[in-house]
Amino acid sequence: MSSDQHCETVRRYWAAAEARDWESFAATLSPDVVYRCPQTREVVRGLDAYLRFNREYPGDWHLDIDRVLGDEEGAMSRTTFTVGGEEMTGLCLFRMDAEGRIVAVEDWWPAPYERPAGRAHLSELQD
Amino acid sequence: MSSDQHCETVRRYWAAAEARDWESFAATLSPDVVYRCPQTREVVRGLDAYLRFNREYPGDWHLDIDRVLGDEEGAMSRTTFTVGGEEMTGLCLFRMDAEGRIVAVEDWWPAPYERPAGRAHLSELQD
Repeated sequence: MSSDQHCETVRRYWAAAEARDWESFAATLSPDVVYRCPQTREVVRGLDAYLRFNREYPGDWHLDIDRVLGDEEGAMSRTTFTVGGEEMTGLCLFRMDAEGRIVAVEDWWPAPYERPAGRAHLSELQD
Repeated sequence: MSSDQHCETVRRYWAAAEARDWESFAATLSPDVVYRCPQTREVVRGLDAYLRFNREYPGDWHLDIDRVLGDEEGAMSRTTFTVGGEEMTGLCLFRMDAEGRIVAVEDWWPAPYERPAGRAHLSELQD
């Protein structure tokens, strides 16, 4: 499987999630898929548990794919999630199995923080 | 410029940063490079300011490149930064100019947070 194919799989994964088309979503995944959110230490193991995690995820969320990048092992996406009026950037790394199905998802949700005091002379702040 | 070339440029960028070889570091960058840290809203514009931002960045930090992925526009890296005994994951998106030099850096530093209460029945927690 090529980097381009991995990127295409990730685009199908997100399009299916946005459409709540859980059959198409499942078709992008390995039965042994493992999801990790390193920031919360959450782990979800296996296709059934991962489908449930996504189906039952609260809120009327919507997503736009900003960018998808690939390598030999899988792909990475930058997405913008909108829930209510709030926007968040999601950064997600994927690894694929030999058949090109997603077997590992690493999910990151960076939140705002204050600029460290020691950097005030080195950067400006955007409005 | 190809995706593979963009990935190679990002590997040279990080190797030069780790070596504090600011001449090699500068060689990967456009004179018009713009750095953004969306979490703090920091912006650093231009090669001189960006070199200074990196040279004067406090702490005896070290980095390992975990993964580099590419697309037609640039590349993305996952790195592990170590400062003292503390490890952090950095996620960085790059865009290149027509000559393949880095012209935009988008830098993310996701910090730990508590698992939302509504997800306790959907995921396990790793030790």
